[in-house]
Amino acid sequence: MSETKKRILTGDRTTGKLHLGHYVGSLQNRVRLQHDYDTFILLADVQALTTHFENPGLIHNSIYDVAIDNLSVGLDPEHVTLFLQSQISAIAELTVFYSMLVSVNVLRHNPTIKTEAKQYGYDDLTYGFLGYPVSQSADITFCNADLVPVGEDQLPHMELTRKIVRRFNDMYGETLKEPQAMLSDCPRLAGLDGNSKMGKSLGNAIYLSDAPQVVTEKVRSAITDTNRISVKTPGNPDVCMVSQYHKVFNSEDYDNICSMCRSASIGCVACKKQLSEKLNTMLDPFREKRAYYEAHRDEVRDIIVSGSEKANKVGDETVKKVKDAMSISL
Amino acid sequence: MSETKKRILTGDRTTGKLHLGHYVGSLQNRVRLQHDYDTFILLADVQALTTHFENPGLIHNSIYDVAIDNLSVGLDPEHVTLFLQSQISAIAELTVFYSMLVSVNVLRHNPTIKTEAKQYGYDDLTYGFLGYPVSQSADITFCNADLVPVGEDQLPHMELTRKIVRRFNDMYGETLKEPQAMLSDCPRLAGLDGNSKMGKSLGNAIYLSDAPQVVTEKVRSAITDTNRISVKTPGNPDVCMVSQYHKVFNSEDYDNICSMCRSASIGCVACKKQLSEKLNTMLDPFREKRAYYEAHRDEVRDIIVSGSEKANKVGDETVKKVKDAMSISL
Repeated sequence: MSETKKRILTGDRTTGKLHLGHYVGSLQNRVRLQHDYDTFILLADVQALTTHFENPGLIHNSIYDVAIDNLSVGLDPEHVTLFLQSQISAIAELTVFYSMLVSVNVLRHNPTIKTEAKQYGYDDLTYGFLGYPVSQSADITFCNADLVPVGEDQLPHMELTRKIVRRFNDMYGETLKEPQAMLSDCPRLAGLDGNSKMGKSLGNAIYLSDAPQVVTEKVRSAITDTNRISVKTPGNPDVCMVSQYHKVFNSEDYDNICSMCRSASIGCVACKKQLSEKLNTMLDPFREKRAYYEAHRDEVRDIIVSGSEKANKVGDETVKKVKDAMSISL
Repeated sequence: MSETKKRILTGDRTTGKLHLGHYVGSLQNRVRLQHDYDTFILLADVQALTTHFENPGLIHNSIYDVAIDNLSVGLDPEHVTLFLQSQISAIAELTVFYSMLVSVNVLRHNPTIKTEAKQYGYDDLTYGFLGYPVSQSADITFCNADLVPVGEDQLPHMELTRKIVRRFNDMYGETLKEPQAMLSDCPRLAGLDGNSKMGKSLGNAIYLSDAPQVVTEKVRSAITDTNRISVKTPGNPDVCMVSQYHKVFNSEDYDNICSMCRSASIGCVACKKQLSEKLNTMLDPFREKRAYYEAHRDEVRDIIVSGSEKANKVGDETVKKVKDAMSISL
């Protein structure tokens, strides 16, 4: 059955728990698509090393956190293949082969690499960090992915993967599948503190694993219209983070809430309460699944082990095809 | 037994047949040391790709050529482990891990990389070429090599390997063995054309697989003292390539030949004849072994396959230890 479905490759770096930004930007889509596509979900622990090699304990713990985050939102281990990057030797082998097909200058001028290097404060890139888009090409092609859901900032990496595939196929004969980007139409979720991005390092993340009262507390501290001094003053939802969250998580009530805000018929406290209730209602079934998996970590382990076995089988076939194409064999 | 012996890691890029320069600089030593050390010989087909990725057919053919060159000079497959780099997934996996521990600038300023890039005429290095010393670190450490025979020009690479090992062990706990360079005391063999190096690309190589008459012919065209116009004129062995070869391959007669040259009691034709006879005497037993292996290529294949199996076993253990040290496991 799954043979006839197109394959999606997606995943997360295992550098911490996933938050609402990940849910809106990616996980939600994975759940929606899991029955229509053959979905491969990468737990990217090796890529996590490119930025967190000094903190492998965090990466290790995050493997389970990220796996459970994925399972808790409704990804069905019977349908998706959840696997651990470091277990797939094909990814390392293909990374080495592809590294002959990419110039150092192309990587150095990659806009995403440049932005991220600046963001991490790197003056002196490691060889591994510079090459992580090459490794990503291996992540995508080892399993013959047809589609890769990406945000706009990842498009240069997708283009590089497609270039590597074309270069390989031109040089050694048609071997690798050229993947397509599946551009996400989800806007990036801003932080409730007004920061344009939600992120662990920014300290503004609402985690999928946060308890109800934690969510309520985080929403309570959100930035609203700072000109609205009292509940009697009309507010401006356009400059209020809470209203933006209503738009995303409570869209059916969004227009109503905005007009109540503008007419001062709802105060910020009540508006925030509505939002946190809405969020907790969404998160409650995730919490139930999470509680199950937290209590059955062996089952999570088995899911990753059997997913990795399946991924290895596909990967070994790809490496064999690649080596045969390159006459790298006995 | 072999457990108590120190392990040597050595090998050759599979980019063409081996010549007298390889023999003098490396193979001769391998043969001499094969009973005192546990010798791992790498057929470096993946590293060959860094410079020859556009010509994989050559790399493929060279796997057998280089293996037979090694066997023909007297390396005993019962004693040494001859293995193919591309078959050892541990090397690719370790390369990826080590790439987090090396900065791009360190690689760019590596003097050997710089020289070689110039030599190959590369303006725009590939990511794989820039990183081949990282991959070499994986070649050396995957099998816990104690010693690596190297020429002077390879010392920066050895130093990088040792740095990676120390960095890894400092960060993740004592895991990897720090290898030592075994500096060769063999001078580099100059070409008979007067070029300071013997090499395929220079067109001045005498191959271990050359037939006797080919060797004789190549010696005949050697550059001697250009001021020696006739056999009656005394010659100057200090400026004669043939005398330098006598020094290496006919050392017991060297002093005698030099004084005969200076006193004009031997002419260049006779002197060259002596050299080619000496070379062919040395090469004859190699030719005999070569003929056997050429006629039994399946046996060569089996030697490489079983050597690669052995190497993979060692490599998989190293990768497991490395992953455990980094907590990169489930």
